[in-house]
Amino acid sequence: MDNIIDFINLHRERYVDELKAFLAIPSVSALSEHRADVTRCAEWCAEEMRRIGLQNVSLKATPGNPVVYGDWLGAPGAPTILFYGHYDVQPVDPLNLWESPPFEATVRDGEIYARGAADDKGQVFMHFKAIEAHLKQAGRLPVNIKVILEGEEEVGSVNLDNFIVQHQAELAADVVVISDSAMFARGVPSICYGLRGLVYCQIDLRGSSTDLHSGVFGGAVANPAFVLAQMISQMKDRGGHIKIPGFYDDVLALAEEERKAWAELPFNERQYKKDFGIPKLAGESDYTTLERTWARPTLEVNGLLSGFTAEGAKTVLPAVAMAKISMRLVPNQDPDKIAQIFEDYVRKLAPKTVELTFTRMHGGKPWMTAYQNPYVQAAARSIERGFGRKPVFTREGGSIPVVSTFQEVLGLPAVLFGVGLPDENAHAPNEKLDLGNFHGGVIASAILYDEMSRVPK
Amino acid sequence: MDNIIDFINLHRERYVDELKAFLAIPSVSALSEHRADVTRCAEWCAEEMRRIGLQNVSLKATPGNPVVYGDWLGAPGAPTILFYGHYDVQPVDPLNLWESPPFEATVRDGEIYARGAADDKGQVFMHFKAIEAHLKQAGRLPVNIKVILEGEEEVGSVNLDNFIVQHQAELAADVVVISDSAMFARGVPSICYGLRGLVYCQIDLRGSSTDLHSGVFGGAVANPAFVLAQMISQMKDRGGHIKIPGFYDDVLALAEEERKAWAELPFNERQYKKDFGIPKLAGESDYTTLERTWARPTLEVNGLLSGFTAEGAKTVLPAVAMAKISMRLVPNQDPDKIAQIFEDYVRKLAPKTVELTFTRMHGGKPWMTAYQNPYVQAAARSIERGFGRKPVFTREGGSIPVVSTFQEVLGLPAVLFGVGLPDENAHAPNEKLDLGNFHGGVIASAILYDEMSRVPK
Repeated sequence: MDNIIDFINLHRERYVDELKAFLAIPSVSALSEHRADVTRCAEWCAEEMRRIGLQNVSLKATPGNPVVYGDWLGAPGAPTILFYGHYDVQPVDPLNLWESPPFEATVRDGEIYARGAADDKGQVFMHFKAIEAHLKQAGRLPVNIKVILEGEEEVGSVNLDNFIVQHQAELAADVVVISDSAMFARGVPSICYGLRGLVYCQIDLRGSSTDLHSGVFGGAVANPAFVLAQMISQMKDRGGHIKIPGFYDDVLALAEEERKAWAELPFNERQYKKDFGIPKLAGESDYTTLERTWARPTLEVNGLLSGFTAEGAKTVLPAVAMAKISMRLVPNQDPDKIAQIFEDYVRKLAPKTVELTFTRMHGGKPWMTAYQNPYVQAAARSIERGFGRKPVFTREGGSIPVVSTFQEVLGLPAVLFGVGLPDENAHAPNEKLDLGNFHGGVIASAILYDEMSRVPK
Repeated sequence: MDNIIDFINLHRERYVDELKAFLAIPSVSALSEHRADVTRCAEWCAEEMRRIGLQNVSLKATPGNPVVYGDWLGAPGAPTILFYGHYDVQPVDPLNLWESPPFEATVRDGEIYARGAADDKGQVFMHFKAIEAHLKQAGRLPVNIKVILEGEEEVGSVNLDNFIVQHQAELAADVVVISDSAMFARGVPSICYGLRGLVYCQIDLRGSSTDLHSGVFGGAVANPAFVLAQMISQMKDRGGHIKIPGFYDDVLALAEEERKAWAELPFNERQYKKDFGIPKLAGESDYTTLERTWARPTLEVNGLLSGFTAEGAKTVLPAVAMAKISMRLVPNQDPDKIAQIFEDYVRKLAPKTVELTFTRMHGGKPWMTAYQNPYVQAAARSIERGFGRKPVFTREGGSIPVVSTFQEVLGLPAVLFGVGLPDENAHAPNEKLDLGNFHGGVIASAILYDEMSRVPK
């Protein structure tokens, strides 16, 4: 391994230049105006995968954006890793809050700023460079590896489940490795063994065929923005308890062991509030901040729009009002069931004075694995060797719905091997990735393949 | 009068062409990008006023947009009319809902479509043409007339009160005439003797310094969009009753005589709902639709904005949320007092988990006059002569704050002589003015000056 690690240390600067090219492609899957960029990004990945020495590289069509596939299968008898990542990114608005352009990666104070730096291009690229180091330096990998990169993770991986079902034999492996999460804190590497699921919906209300003058009509016609506010206020109480009937029925309670382990993690609430400019923390009073975000379901308003929102005053009674609302789910909640009871509840809340359009946008199952699994333990050892410190075991509040699919369809345990940091602004302006963690991550990934090669099949 | 009316009938087509030029100027006072257009519109008005024969025409500076002044004072001993109108218009968004461009006036089925057609350029222009007919045909007006046009009516006439106080002597008159309202219905001309007042505010909430990932942070950090919805839901109940403590303290109850007279007006709720695409009417259960909009105060959300509002799904926990909220006031509510109790209430509703910024934007007093006033009765006679039908006496739900100022500072009764129609989309896409009513209005205005000349001073 030593000469492989030397190779990685020698090429640190080149890696950053190459990563900048990857980050320059605005592969925003949520916006149709970026469709061509998304395709261009898939092609860029395929070329890069050929360059580093992967074989059978191709773009596999889906009804949406293509999946990029590549493999190296020259280690018969050794375990096979399925590596999954995504090349699409979140939208960038509000653009004016970015300190440097989101698609011109900029290094400041040892961090690289760009949309996708942490989520997920930077972490995908870390594995590219680990694979490259093995193949260029040793001429081989200690394990077999299959890489799939999707282009729709940020819009709910709508076509990936089908893709996996259809390519079941082709994707057969022993473990799936995903690097799309953050370590617990700077200097506290971690392995994540649980994720929340997601249900994302849009509510549109219409109170009249056209915007009306609020003086002429106000008082006699329902105001859809007001009705929407009333409906939203009945979805959750001030204490963070969700009021949808049946919402908590299947929630798996936190184990005492978990609560105890998490209570010992180096988490500083004062610093957390300061880092994110939070006046006062909110949430369910019986749970700590980590418990609230890792193991408790929640309901969030992701967007609100109605009437006149520009500078100044316009006395309009809006015709329509829109809310985007999502719920994070925990084991064992089912996204389809939750979407249904939410829709039922919203339909019950909507008065007859407005027309309701309810749209289910996407969803994903929550996930949890045993951290005693030998591949998880192999990952723990590689992190200890790469970062010089034993990882802590955590869960995460975010969602990677495909993790459940790998478990259910391919029967694979998943190793979430993330080197992001919690303050790296994934999904927000000024997304960034710590270059120290990136380089540590390239080394740890290279070691990961080595460690996993020794897990008995 | 006959030859003056003949003159008006002869020039119908020219009037429409000239009006189109007036409507072509995008004098949107709410948006700073239109500042130059607003000034250009003031200059256009001044030129037009010179063309029709008014004297002493000038642009009077204010800290905001100029007031256009002109007069004709050649009837010593006769009453003096102060005519007030405004040359600024509402913003046009959402632009995609306009069937023809808002600043390219288009005639369809006897109606002229453009922003400002009804509110207020069309109605100002009606008086221009009535004055022109007198001056071109008779060489004189039967009354003295002073014209003032402001450019900030749609942003709350913020500088007009001071202007009137500062030009008190110059503006001395016997009656103020305003044509900035709608008749009760097509074919039912009306005189308006009451208006609602206005308080307009903006609420901004901040829950974190930047947008956050709703998975990573959801459940532990207040969602300002959700908090805003909760706050708004506590401002008014489902029955339309406003929950701000003290809000109804000064409300003048409806007179039985008014309720009786209004109940006899030809108002068809089924048609009203159909015209405006309203699924079901809303409001206070003890009041009729006319009572709700004319004589009861209300609170409306005029705009809502938070988080991700474009196409698709973005799992963001928004940093900020904004609402524009206005209240329509009725006699004897005081806008300053209401703004204060509203601000107090909002500050009480805001939890410590968010930072609140409360902005008072503008306000205006409600107004009511006696319809027995001789100038009001002169207006009623001129409408009967111009439209062939006695007007009904109504109140209106909208606000023209300056009416109170004319009453308080100059001691003038106001005559609201409006020829718009309630379905003309003032403040909404596809604003229009019925050209039949416009021409009838030019004739009625010409007669109005004649009728008012006979009111004993």
